[in-house]
Amino acid sequence: MPDCDISSFARLDFDRKARTGFGETVFGEGKTPEQLRRIFLAFKAARQSALATRCTAEQADYLAAAGVACTWDPVSRTIVLKGRPNRRIKGLVAVCTGGTADIPIAEEAARTVEFFGAEALRLYDVGIAGLHRLLGRLDDIRRADVVIAVAGMEGALGSVIAGLVGAPVVAVPTSVGYGAGAGGLAPLLSMLNSCAEGLSVVNIDNGFGAAVCACRMLRMRPRAK
Amino acid sequence: MPDCDISSFARLDFDRKARTGFGETVFGEGKTPEQLRRIFLAFKAARQSALATRCTAEQADYLAAAGVACTWDPVSRTIVLKGRPNRRIKGLVAVCTGGTADIPIAEEAARTVEFFGAEALRLYDVGIAGLHRLLGRLDDIRRADVVIAVAGMEGALGSVIAGLVGAPVVAVPTSVGYGAGAGGLAPLLSMLNSCAEGLSVVNIDNGFGAAVCACRMLRMRPRAK
Amino acid sequence: MPDCDISSFARLDFDRKARTGFGETVFGEGKTPEQLRRIFLAFKAARQSALATRCTAEQADYLAAAGVACTWDPVSRTIVLKGRPNRRIKGLVAVCTGGTADIPIAEEAARTVEFFGAEALRLYDVGIAGLHRLLGRLDDIRRADVVIAVAGMEGALGSVIAGLVGAPVVAVPTSVGYGAGAGGLAPLLSMLNSCAEGLSVVNIDNGFGAAVCACRMLRMRPRAK
Amino acid sequence: MPDCDISSFARLDFDRKARTGFGETVFGEGKTPEQLRRIFLAFKAARQSALATRCTAEQADYLAAAGVACTWDPVSRTIVLKGRPNRRIKGLVAVCTGGTADIPIAEEAARTVEFFGAEALRLYDVGIAGLHRLLGRLDDIRRADVVIAVAGMEGALGSVIAGLVGAPVVAVPTSVGYGAGAGGLAPLLSMLNSCAEGLSVVNIDNGFGAAVCACRMLRMRPRAK
Amino acid sequence: MPDCDISSFARLDFDRKARTGFGETVFGEGKTPEQLRRIFLAFKAARQSALATRCTAEQADYLAAAGVACTWDPVSRTIVLKGRPNRRIKGLVAVCTGGTADIPIAEEAARTVEFFGAEALRLYDVGIAGLHRLLGRLDDIRRADVVIAVAGMEGALGSVIAGLVGAPVVAVPTSVGYGAGAGGLAPLLSMLNSCAEGLSVVNIDNGFGAAVCACRMLRMRPRAK
Amino acid sequence: MPDCDISSFARLDFDRKARTGFGETVFGEGKTPEQLRRIFLAFKAARQSALATRCTAEQADYLAAAGVACTWDPVSRTIVLKGRPNRRIKGLVAVCTGGTADIPIAEEAARTVEFFGAEALRLYDVGIAGLHRLLGRLDDIRRADVVIAVAGMEGALGSVIAGLVGAPVVAVPTSVGYGAGAGGLAPLLSMLNSCAEGLSVVNIDNGFGAAVCACRMLRMRPRAK
Amino acid sequence: MPDCDISSFARLDFDRKARTGFGETVFGEGKTPEQLRRIFLAFKAARQSALATRCTAEQADYLAAAGVACTWDPVSRTIVLKGRPNRRIKGLVAVCTGGTADIPIAEEAARTVEFFGAEALRLYDVGIAGLHRLLGRLDDIRRADVVIAVAGMEGALGSVIAGLVGAPVVAVPTSVGYGAGAGGLAPLLSMLNSCAEGLSVVNIDNGFGAAVCACRMLRMRPRAK
Amino acid sequence: MPDCDISSFARLDFDRKARTGFGETVFGEGKTPEQLRRIFLAFKAARQSALATRCTAEQADYLAAAGVACTWDPVSRTIVLKGRPNRRIKGLVAVCTGGTADIPIAEEAARTVEFFGAEALRLYDVGIAGLHRLLGRLDDIRRADVVIAVAGMEGALGSVIAGLVGAPVVAVPTSVGYGAGAGGLAPLLSMLNSCAEGLSVVNIDNGFGAAVCACRMLRMRPRAK
Repeated sequence: MPDCDISSFARLDFDRKARTGFGETVFGEGKTPEQLRRIFLAFKAARQSALATRCTAEQADYLAAAGVACTWDPVSRTIVLKGRPNRRIKGLVAVCTGGTADIPIAEEAARTVEFFGAEALRLYDVGIAGLHRLLGRLDDIRRADVVIAVAGMEGALGSVIAGLVGAPVVAVPTSVGYGAGAGGLAPLLSMLNSCAEGLSVVNIDNGFGAAVCACRMLRMRPRAK
Repeated sequence: MPDCDISSFARLDFDRKARTGFGETVFGEGKTPEQLRRIFLAFKAARQSALATRCTAEQADYLAAAGVACTWDPVSRTIVLKGRPNRRIKGLVAVCTGGTADIPIAEEAARTVEFFGAEALRLYDVGIAGLHRLLGRLDDIRRADVVIAVAGMEGALGSVIAGLVGAPVVAVPTSVGYGAGAGGLAPLLSMLNSCAEGLSVVNIDNGFGAAVCACRMLRMRPRAK
Repeated sequence: MPDCDISSFARLDFDRKARTGFGETVFGEGKTPEQLRRIFLAFKAARQSALATRCTAEQADYLAAAGVACTWDPVSRTIVLKGRPNRRIKGLVAVCTGGTADIPIAEEAARTVEFFGAEALRLYDVGIAGLHRLLGRLDDIRRADVVIAVAGMEGALGSVIAGLVGAPVVAVPTSVGYGAGAGGLAPLLSMLNSCAEGLSVVNIDNGFGAAVCACRMLRMRPRAK
Repeated sequence: MPDCDISSFARLDFDRKARTGFGETVFGEGKTPEQLRRIFLAFKAARQSALATRCTAEQADYLAAAGVACTWDPVSRTIVLKGRPNRRIKGLVAVCTGGTADIPIAEEAARTVEFFGAEALRLYDVGIAGLHRLLGRLDDIRRADVVIAVAGMEGALGSVIAGLVGAPVVAVPTSVGYGAGAGGLAPLLSMLNSCAEGLSVVNIDNGFGAAVCACRMLRMRPRAK
Repeated sequence: MPDCDISSFARLDFDRKARTGFGETVFGEGKTPEQLRRIFLAFKAARQSALATRCTAEQADYLAAAGVACTWDPVSRTIVLKGRPNRRIKGLVAVCTGGTADIPIAEEAARTVEFFGAEALRLYDVGIAGLHRLLGRLDDIRRADVVIAVAGMEGALGSVIAGLVGAPVVAVPTSVGYGAGAGGLAPLLSMLNSCAEGLSVVNIDNGFGAAVCACRMLRMRPRAK
Repeated sequence: MPDCDISSFARLDFDRKARTGFGETVFGEGKTPEQLRRIFLAFKAARQSALATRCTAEQADYLAAAGVACTWDPVSRTIVLKGRPNRRIKGLVAVCTGGTADIPIAEEAARTVEFFGAEALRLYDVGIAGLHRLLGRLDDIRRADVVIAVAGMEGALGSVIAGLVGAPVVAVPTSVGYGAGAGGLAPLLSMLNSCAEGLSVVNIDNGFGAAVCACRMLRMRPRAK
Repeated sequence: MPDCDISSFARLDFDRKARTGFGETVFGEGKTPEQLRRIFLAFKAARQSALATRCTAEQADYLAAAGVACTWDPVSRTIVLKGRPNRRIKGLVAVCTGGTADIPIAEEAARTVEFFGAEALRLYDVGIAGLHRLLGRLDDIRRADVVIAVAGMEGALGSVIAGLVGAPVVAVPTSVGYGAGAGGLAPLLSMLNSCAEGLSVVNIDNGFGAAVCACRMLRMRPRAK
Repeated sequence: MPDCDISSFARLDFDRKARTGFGETVFGEGKTPEQLRRIFLAFKAARQSALATRCTAEQADYLAAAGVACTWDPVSRTIVLKGRPNRRIKGLVAVCTGGTADIPIAEEAARTVEFFGAEALRLYDVGIAGLHRLLGRLDDIRRADVVIAVAGMEGALGSVIAGLVGAPVVAVPTSVGYGAGAGGLAPLLSMLNSCAEGLSVVNIDNGFGAAVCACRMLRMRPRAK
């Protein structure tokens, strides 16, 4: 199998970094392992860092077997190309979850935050059914510059946090739940109707998107001088 | 205007008290003032207590002008016939709201609880955006045998309470809110997807229904000997 | 395979019993057999009773092979740790279904009721398309302190029962049905719009949740003295 | 005001009777009183019977003032031209309602049945929350050739009846109800998901449509010889 | 494998024939082959005819191997017990489809009609995109006492037919279609909003239900003497 | 009231004609009469033709009183500035409706077609419940270069036409209808799921949009030489 | 396997070409390979060109093995019978996509355009998140007589193009996306609510349908002389 | 009318500033003018700045007549108490709209930004149907630290901007639009499914909420030292 051209299936936007300050990334879902390999090689050739989200173990194994130097994380389902870290962004992002089932989405967020050079603080399983768990970690949450609140079921975590701290909160509804409002509809509507202020929302299960929002916020600071 | 028969527009179920322990009540919405007057007279003739919900000031004024001895409450929009109180039910029902806009529904619940002979404890505007307000009233909530949690917007109040106390919680979503999930859909789905246990739900804005559920629970006790 | 720590994937809330009177339980869906084993061992170490719902035969077989002393019920899909029964709660819960396809959800409810120490009376396949079946069991239903009405399709069982008895009724819509309103939407909306009083609703297929509601109601009695 | 032509706003299908056995009718909603007057005159000129549904008192008053000989019924909101009755259809249609709020739709059905020459038996307020009311009228219902079951709220009336009798049942969901499933969605889904057999459904509040279905059924008989 | 009791998983309503004139039937979906075998034996023991719908080839093969004398039709997915035909009902039911993909549902309807003793006339693939196909069969459709119109996609077949003939039309939306309104929503809404009269609707893919409605209509005749 | 600037409430895109070949137009809904007057003056000053849709009689009266020379059509609710006709486009657009209630939307389409210089042929009330009406006008429809099919209720008109002729069909669902699928949802889904080919759809009640599509199609011809 | 008749499962409309100018085609989804083979033979016997959409590799392999001379394209999932090209239609159709995941639907459109004899210009991955990509191809888009805009996610591609060019734009929403609005709902609603003019919409993923619309538009020209 | 207590209808959270850095505000909708007056007096007594949103001219007139020194803006429908400005926050927020109908929501956002002490740059009517308008203002947008993108209809403005600049974008869907996806559903889903990164979303018409999010982002900077 030759190292052929990717133009028939993808058009990488390496110009994005110049426009927005954050480089192109890869949505792994639906791509063949070989397509992913070629894409990673293109990033390498362009001397850019590379992050792929929503990948499978099969894709990761193929890349490893093909000798692409990268790191696979099975919980967040992300693959990162080794050796080209992004410049550091100053700032701390707290990534909180309501339950344990929300952890994969939270890890996608946390690893994206780290990929773009900021620091992530993980605070998992602090949902509102046992409020003492959240209140016990409040000092940690208050240290963060931005909070990402990841929750399924009734999705109230972000509202409770936004009422307790002054940092901007990005809420991520997850598809955890069942019955009425399944697939993430219940937490999505909850978050959009939050009675707390300072909360904005991304699409269901979009941990990556929340992380980019958080990093854009952190990046504001040096530029704004 | 003669005191004519009501059979053309309503069929009162005075037998319900024998079957279920709770007498017939009246849904005032859509009834003419004169229809309501005749219904109240029928209750009086049957020597039954009478509660009408979702009434208007116009209906209440008409009854007063027609000499029907009853009490009108504009917040809960209920009318109660004077002089025929129900037998007392032992027990305390805490009626909590997330915000001030939920108060009319909460009052419908509280007055229905009182109409059926139980005690209601009102705890209003203790929503989760300012958690200290709820935690400050926790001892009061813990005294209650049943909790009715009335909330619009993201509707998380019931979940938080059910995680803190051991009493059964009846959650009432309200139509307070706007945009996505308006009309009560967001809190309804939230409550059905609660990550806390011990919570059951009634229809949007159905304060009356929550109150009857609570009273049936209180009534269990003597009968269960 | 060492008996390692569970903190990376679950945070058990053993404090819940003190707060709410009912101990922590386990939602089996999505957990690996080994995760479930470690969780059961943690319950055992904490000298707590353990109930897991939505389990698979594969999970149960693994636990048995690993020597965890527990009982597997394939219909309700529950696993109960042997040897640590909860204290008895006085009271009888009637668990009724509309059809045979609703039985798995009803069994989840009945076994949860029994796990928490109350008595369950099963009345299955008494739906409204053959009313004689329900009316023939009315005396049994009237003996119960609480009724759990489990129904899919048009979901009218709870309304009919709530009109016939005085006990509180917890209605469980099931995902039994097809076409318009499939997935439990039709019975859920039916139950929320019930023309009968004294009915509250839990999420679709949430037999466990209905049982905890019922047990909280039964538990009211001793505490309320 | 001259008796001008109707062709600019309506094209009456007087040929329909030949094709389907039932003459053209008028949907009154949205028509001006003068338009309605001209339409009635066109029916009269064509020596056809005329029924208008969803009319207002204002339309009826205008017709009366203009000397059009017709009958206005404010409950069903129908207007019938005097003096041109349809030929009789043999057969009895039972029109049942769950509650009193469903009566206007039921009356639209009953009067349409009578307009087309069949007999209607009204059985109102026999909903399932007080089952004795329905069971007490069972002999009457069993006499009918077709049953029209009109219900809002949880909409279970048709299912219960179809399980008790052998006649075809046409179910009409009404927009009576509120909160989740309001506007008739709850009873519509209920009726489509009926666990009973022999039930078909028309659109929400479509009493007229149910009546035409019933009359087509009755009409089958002579033709089928 | 002993011929054990069915009471643990099904409660057959052999009394239904007395109440409604049509015997009990079996919904095959979700039943194990062995459960189905026992149910068929119970019907045989009760000397009743038996029809099972939504069956699989695996169920049919099992019954054949176990020596149960029955007929399997793979298109309609029905199984009929041999040797106990129902009494004949006089009358002809035209079963029409819009496309070829609707045929399985139409066959379920046609075979149910035949099972209950009436005659079915199949008119398939006469949808409105090629109107000549429908108009060319109009004389056949006009001979029918009842029409069952089975259609997916835009679901307009029933409306067109109801405007052309005088027989009652039972419309069956099918889940044929894709994109917006998939799963049968588009034809269901179409049929409920039909601008033609004399049309009633059953649930999506419910060919069986439409057939029972049609047979109840045909059965009216002898009883109505 | 001085003839002041419109820049505070509108930014007219007079450049659009150069880009797309069709000039800017005005959506009248929600604009004050005075705002509309200033906008018309701006068009006049730019020597452009002007069409405003969704206008009210009040707006039209105000313009007339203010001396703006324009034509008001109450059925289509359009206002056209006098004296600046667009250049003629060769081609005929047939505008068909299912019922009389669809006429206002059809007139919006027809007048927009005429405003942009093409010819419109009106064929109203030719819906599928009385197929002879449509088939009787088929020769007229076949003469058209483009067909606009305007229909509410079940919305099948466009599918039937697209199966009979070879011209492109633009389907406009209208909000005519009630109950399930009201507000135009039923015809919209119908049209999107059409089993006929060559049909595309615009938003509910968007007669204007359909007309612009049709005119763009007609305009293709000269340019494509 | 004999070359038997297709009348039991399909009724080909070879008359369609005469009525609409475009021949019958085949929807491959759900057909067995053998059914497809017989259908292709029927087209061949009728000396008609044949296009099948939504086919699988399995179907294509079967046809090849059976000696049917046809071309399989795995991206668009189309099969075309060799040797009977349609007559050429003059005109150029630009087929644009927002992302790479939309390419299969775009290829279905492009190949259908080519099958019917017109020219297709492919412009893929020119979505609005990197506007320079679209603006860089504007001259190409302006050359087209019709534009087909294929997009998932937020579906804004068609609106942007319709604001920039004067050709008619047919927008195809795709099911690319996830979370809220998944399955193509978000781009469908976007396209229907476009603030640009001259845009009409087909069903989700209906590349074939958009192509037929485009070809009907191109075909207008010769006929309109 | 005495200056009585507000505790019966509102519980102001003056502690919020300490917790979150932003003071309490007032949702004016549904409050009586007198209630609003008392609330403003309470803010004044607490020496806090006061902003009320969603107010009416009637409320504003009443406050003015009662001598409360405040500023009313009819476009944004906000009232601000005079004389207690918040401390300045460094930073620029660009507030962009797609059309003119989105301006009231944008003004709510802009005035809230200014109330909390930051600078707002208004860029109205730069929607994507005329892309030159947006591209012509790109330098202005690039100067901003945060962008608020307010859009109805297809709601693509935020996606286009987020692809062009590096600042965080808060998208506000508005209820501008009609037909399918009306009430803001179309732009909400569009924004959640944006193919651009760095975009988060607030509820429909929630200009106030977007502004608080933006101000929290700006506030991060001094604190993060």
